[in-house]
Amino acid sequence: MIKQLLLAPGPTPVPARVRAAIARPIIHHRTPQFGQLFGRAREGLRELFGTASDVVTLSASGTGAMEAAIVNCFAPGDKVLVVNGGKFGERWLKLAQTYSLVPIELRVEWGHAVKVDDVERVLGENPDIRGVLIQGSETSTTACHPVEQIAALTRTRDVLLVVDGITAVGVYDVPMDKWGIDVLVTGSQKAMMLPPGLAFIALSDRAWQRAASVCQPRFYFDLARERASQAKNSTAYTPAISLIFGLDEALTMMREEGYPRIYARHARCAQATRAAATALGLKLLAPDSPSPAATGAFMPEGVDGGKLHGYLRDKMGVAFAGGQDHLKGKILRIAHIGYMGAFDTIDAVAALEMALRHFGHPVELGRGVGAAQEVLMSALPD
Amino acid sequence: MIKQLLLAPGPTPVPARVRAAIARPIIHHRTPQFGQLFGRAREGLRELFGTASDVVTLSASGTGAMEAAIVNCFAPGDKVLVVNGGKFGERWLKLAQTYSLVPIELRVEWGHAVKVDDVERVLGENPDIRGVLIQGSETSTTACHPVEQIAALTRTRDVLLVVDGITAVGVYDVPMDKWGIDVLVTGSQKAMMLPPGLAFIALSDRAWQRAASVCQPRFYFDLARERASQAKNSTAYTPAISLIFGLDEALTMMREEGYPRIYARHARCAQATRAAATALGLKLLAPDSPSPAATGAFMPEGVDGGKLHGYLRDKMGVAFAGGQDHLKGKILRIAHIGYMGAFDTIDAVAALEMALRHFGHPVELGRGVGAAQEVLMSALPD
Repeated sequence: MIKQLLLAPGPTPVPARVRAAIARPIIHHRTPQFGQLFGRAREGLRELFGTASDVVTLSASGTGAMEAAIVNCFAPGDKVLVVNGGKFGERWLKLAQTYSLVPIELRVEWGHAVKVDDVERVLGENPDIRGVLIQGSETSTTACHPVEQIAALTRTRDVLLVVDGITAVGVYDVPMDKWGIDVLVTGSQKAMMLPPGLAFIALSDRAWQRAASVCQPRFYFDLARERASQAKNSTAYTPAISLIFGLDEALTMMREEGYPRIYARHARCAQATRAAATALGLKLLAPDSPSPAATGAFMPEGVDGGKLHGYLRDKMGVAFAGGQDHLKGKILRIAHIGYMGAFDTIDAVAALEMALRHFGHPVELGRGVGAAQEVLMSALPD
Repeated sequence: MIKQLLLAPGPTPVPARVRAAIARPIIHHRTPQFGQLFGRAREGLRELFGTASDVVTLSASGTGAMEAAIVNCFAPGDKVLVVNGGKFGERWLKLAQTYSLVPIELRVEWGHAVKVDDVERVLGENPDIRGVLIQGSETSTTACHPVEQIAALTRTRDVLLVVDGITAVGVYDVPMDKWGIDVLVTGSQKAMMLPPGLAFIALSDRAWQRAASVCQPRFYFDLARERASQAKNSTAYTPAISLIFGLDEALTMMREEGYPRIYARHARCAQATRAAATALGLKLLAPDSPSPAATGAFMPEGVDGGKLHGYLRDKMGVAFAGGQDHLKGKILRIAHIGYMGAFDTIDAVAALEMALRHFGHPVELGRGVGAAQEVLMSALPD
């Protein structure tokens, strides 16, 4: 038996309380019992998103909600600015292309945040841009984009700001209404402490208005239809009932902990991990705009990140995420989100130290752990 | 405490073994462990569908897989024959319209099966028809369509037969390859004894060929992309991992029982329910082509089916399904699929008798139960 630790940025560990809720016997979804439970969850989702609008629940992965954003808010031929700084920026680009939008790609070096000035410049050069597609946190590069500042640009223009918040919502504060985000998307398997299988999407008033005028065909992802059903605490199609049980429980847990404490916990674990990586002499992937969702670090010269990742997973029982595309084999990504605490961070750092030593890299065992502890101790009560 | 009985045609009860599997800690989906489990499930799905083709798993409700069938196999302007004999036939029609196909609607009176001759006639009159969209079992009317005979018509023509098997696959034998079905769709929450949230779709060789040439935009439901990922026991997007755990367990249970026994059990419970309804003087909704998935019966003159349905659910703890559209308040539907046995049927009939008596209908208590028992006893060992 090797006890398993799941420390990847999604799927993330699901607490026993939530798993017990998910294992409850199925009830029919067209019943007052389901309606009551779903109604409570809908309120919790509004709180999580920081919006007075409806948050629509979809039985799909986060990509389904990204697609819903595109097919509901944009028509073929619509010009959109796509911030592409990683695998998920690329996904916006592919979605935009698939549905015949006209994307203007703003490429950002992996590991970096987009510059607000660049966004402003492209918007200025293209007054016919109808939307900006961006990530809050780009999971593949562990970098955060300056969504609040970009929202300040879009909300004064006829430009919808569409944010993939899959590793942002619930990770750190992304107050949709306050910032003026038009479309905010997330998935269940990240900060929400749920298994994958649910996705969530909220639209601002002007995004709903846009959706009403857009004629891109849609059916399963028809948000107006879902919104109308969900306003009655029902769904247009049979929902993933077990996961909705879990959703209600997870939102209850989040409310119990309180969002400021959740955000501080994620930030602290991220800061501790960065301190540890630095103490171990590792180069951070996103030093200037690191996401609290996950920390990416380059592996030392001569260490094959792919082999290290496999060894950690298969021999040590520790699941991190590796790198994608040109970062494959070069980096490791360590998550801090959802059902995670100080000791998950300590385990992550300790495992990394041991694996690096195993692959011949000179490591003073405990050095990174100590650096993490220094940060984590700041949260201990007096 | 009122002990709850779920006797509706989906969602259906989930066995404790499956619920326990679903409650297991999450593992990462890009791991050999997940791959092994998913690979085993993929084999089980082939057996369930009766196909040598790949069965693609989607994180969505059954409607998502219906949409996938449309957007992968048909282009705008393609003429399709839609057999519309209930709410789900109507769904095919709406999907076809949404994606700009040219549907020829063959309306069938609710509660009846389509006539094979009518299908043949319409195909003869419209040699440019590219597909037939039909239900195996039309859940809203509890009627079965003659899919095998229609497949005999389509497989000799350049016409894809697309079957919504959501209350057919696993309910009775629908051997995809043997009959020559081109696209077969099902959902997790019916005969498969799983919660809602997964959908499954298989394509024949010629349907895959068609899909390769069709340019209808698709992304989340791009079946070629999913098939390529799933061939490696992975998925294009994060799958509903907990439900995949349950899928593996449920398919194991189905294999243990054996498909012929499962189909006989469903058929027997359906036959017993029909015998009971007849003994109680109730008129069957689909007397000529009843589905083994669920039995629909008209409520007696003077009994409000809606009130009876609510009373059963809220006061007796028994969830049946009511009628939809013009059948609202007029019928009751009792399911026989999935994790159901003889005593669920007996409970269903007993509950119905008691509720009818409560609403003033003269019922000899036990008369319907006795008729059901006569049928159910046939399966007892000597």
